[in-house]
Amino acid sequence: MTHVRITATHLADGRELFYFDDSEPYVSGAATRRLDDPRPLPPQFADGAQGPQMRRDPLTGDWIPMATHRMNRTFLPPADANPLAPARPGAAYSDGEIPDTDYDVVVFENRFPSLARVEGTPGPGDLEGEPLWEVRPADGRCEVICFSPDSTRSLREVSPLRMRTIIEAWAQRTEALSQIEGVQQIFPFENRGEEIGVTLHHPHGQIYAYPYLTPRTSIMLDRAREHRAATGGNLLADVMTAELRSGRRVIAQSEHWVAYVPAAGRWPVEIHVAPLDTSRPIPDLAALTDAEKDDLAGFYLEILGRCDMFFPDDDGSPTRLPYIAGWHQAPVGEGRDDLRLHLQLFSIRRAPGKLKYLAGSESGMAAWISDTTPEKVADRLREVATAYVPAGLENPGDHR
Amino acid sequence: MTHVRITATHLADGRELFYFDDSEPYVSGAATRRLDDPRPLPPQFADGAQGPQMRRDPLTGDWIPMATHRMNRTFLPPADANPLAPARPGAAYSDGEIPDTDYDVVVFENRFPSLARVEGTPGPGDLEGEPLWEVRPADGRCEVICFSPDSTRSLREVSPLRMRTIIEAWAQRTEALSQIEGVQQIFPFENRGEEIGVTLHHPHGQIYAYPYLTPRTSIMLDRAREHRAATGGNLLADVMTAELRSGRRVIAQSEHWVAYVPAAGRWPVEIHVAPLDTSRPIPDLAALTDAEKDDLAGFYLEILGRCDMFFPDDDGSPTRLPYIAGWHQAPVGEGRDDLRLHLQLFSIRRAPGKLKYLAGSESGMAAWISDTTPEKVADRLREVATAYVPAGLENPGDHR
Repeated sequence: MTHVRITATHLADGRELFYFDDSEPYVSGAATRRLDDPRPLPPQFADGAQGPQMRRDPLTGDWIPMATHRMNRTFLPPADANPLAPARPGAAYSDGEIPDTDYDVVVFENRFPSLARVEGTPGPGDLEGEPLWEVRPADGRCEVICFSPDSTRSLREVSPLRMRTIIEAWAQRTEALSQIEGVQQIFPFENRGEEIGVTLHHPHGQIYAYPYLTPRTSIMLDRAREHRAATGGNLLADVMTAELRSGRRVIAQSEHWVAYVPAAGRWPVEIHVAPLDTSRPIPDLAALTDAEKDDLAGFYLEILGRCDMFFPDDDGSPTRLPYIAGWHQAPVGEGRDDLRLHLQLFSIRRAPGKLKYLAGSESGMAAWISDTTPEKVADRLREVATAYVPAGLENPGDHR
Repeated sequence: MTHVRITATHLADGRELFYFDDSEPYVSGAATRRLDDPRPLPPQFADGAQGPQMRRDPLTGDWIPMATHRMNRTFLPPADANPLAPARPGAAYSDGEIPDTDYDVVVFENRFPSLARVEGTPGPGDLEGEPLWEVRPADGRCEVICFSPDSTRSLREVSPLRMRTIIEAWAQRTEALSQIEGVQQIFPFENRGEEIGVTLHHPHGQIYAYPYLTPRTSIMLDRAREHRAATGGNLLADVMTAELRSGRRVIAQSEHWVAYVPAAGRWPVEIHVAPLDTSRPIPDLAALTDAEKDDLAGFYLEILGRCDMFFPDDDGSPTRLPYIAGWHQAPVGEGRDDLRLHLQLFSIRRAPGKLKYLAGSESGMAAWISDTTPEKVADRLREVATAYVPAGLENPGDHR
């Protein structure tokens, strides 16, 4: 159980920002500090500016948001600045996005979003009057979450208390974003590593609120409905139960969680993490109990720790595995009962210094070829287990 | 119209190899040269060795071929050797895969295939007795096609005559591979560039014969059937016709072909090439007329030439755009009438020195975000047009 104080404010251009503070003296927004953003930022979308639009690909049915809108980029931070760092004490205003000089965890709307709701954007229609080419506003939302004020840390290195706060922030934002009209699913995820294009090393993730069902969720929903029709069961719960029954690819289990390499995993490293309780529906992070969230904090850090030991340095110390970690959550509306919360963490690193590239078969045909087996991956992830005991959440004196 | 002489032979380990010679003296396999492969190669699959297997992902329904089989890799070529080069004249045997000392175009079975039919591989079943985890032999076929004996060339730089031979080889192999029991679709493709993981610079492509429908083909088939049910038309033909009617994204047109940037294209550079004749079904390359194949040779080279001018050098000369170019062909069996031949050529290069990475949204959710618009991409591809006139196929004295 943890106490998180949420402080809501706005950035100078109108975007929302939320501080999530977990420790005395609840640093950000404290009386002695400033909450507001004094930067001379123009409004995010000037009068008459349109929001992003998306087109539906007639060959696949996928919605493709496009950078068709022109946004005002006059106030870009200096190239060497870290826009996710806290403001420097005493400076007139921050070089970056965070007005306050300290924070525990902070979430704010992305300044150049792929998905955004903007008044005045044309509604649904056709491109060039052609019914094959449906067009709609890409009226979702893109948020950024900073995991720590310390730019040199990796998510793996935050305290269990801080990890618990991050989980609380994911859950709270999932709940809040689910209320936005038209939003169909919420995807909290982290991209880590230059190998997947991350140029900003400050530990952070993103939260997308899509105004459509993503292709992966749509297809999982189709499979889940087929499975329910055939067996009466929930596909995600039954897959987890089958992995537990087999045990061959389970890499860690706690009171409330299990982590396994899926039997048909496709990435060089792939881990799914799911809540054990199948007695109730758990559509998303917001549906977790406090006990499940508390337990997840240490469990998640243990999994991240193993990832960085998958390909250690020559001297046996951890190296930062490039990874993508995303929380698959059930849709907000239709299909909510058919899917179930689970984390998918995967890497394109197939050996030290070597990546799996998505070439013709994967990128052209979406037909994956695996260079390994899930059993080998699971063996390695078990080998690098630490003496893991779900950790207590108290870390006195380490609010960072 | 062209004359191509096909010479079929086998490599020392039993794999098939086909020379496609287009010019006097029809160099490979000529009387004075050797056809056989004298290397001391062990059989590709030793007695009792099993072929590759694949597992069905219960969350998506996708088949995932896996490197579960152990193949004999004792006879690897030296690391600095080019296994696609012709044999050196006078050498006891080739360092690489091609026994002959010269060739025009050559196709052979991949030595370490992801898909292969091997006698004795267990048939369909379940992993660990679990019905959720279907297993089957990955009994398709993977072939390599060398576009030129000259390692320094790029496909863009071959002669129209040679391009015509390559098209003939694609068409012939499509026809032949379609006869293999269990093969459901044929995918000729080229990966070019280190940026997508290509380490072998010799100009070459691959031909996959899948024993299942790939996810992209399955989904296009679903959309095509919905479209036929709703309108009576063929989706691919109707999309092409709509692009012709609009004209906004058409970048080139010849007597038999059109190239356009699709209205909902998702890659930083994406081009579709389709045959103009909608009066007959054209499921695959094997269904093309000689006139269509002749015309395609120059047309394809023109498209490749423009790709390399998309981001030219500082001095205006072409640079090699990393790309994936794949021929989408209708399935061999069911669904054959619903789909239609088209090429999809795309690049992850979004600016000089910059790539689009497939991060959380794309890799985790299959939800693409485009950083550009198809209209901008089309404008650029028109700007870099050469004074293109469909070229004659005679190139005397340039059999390479």
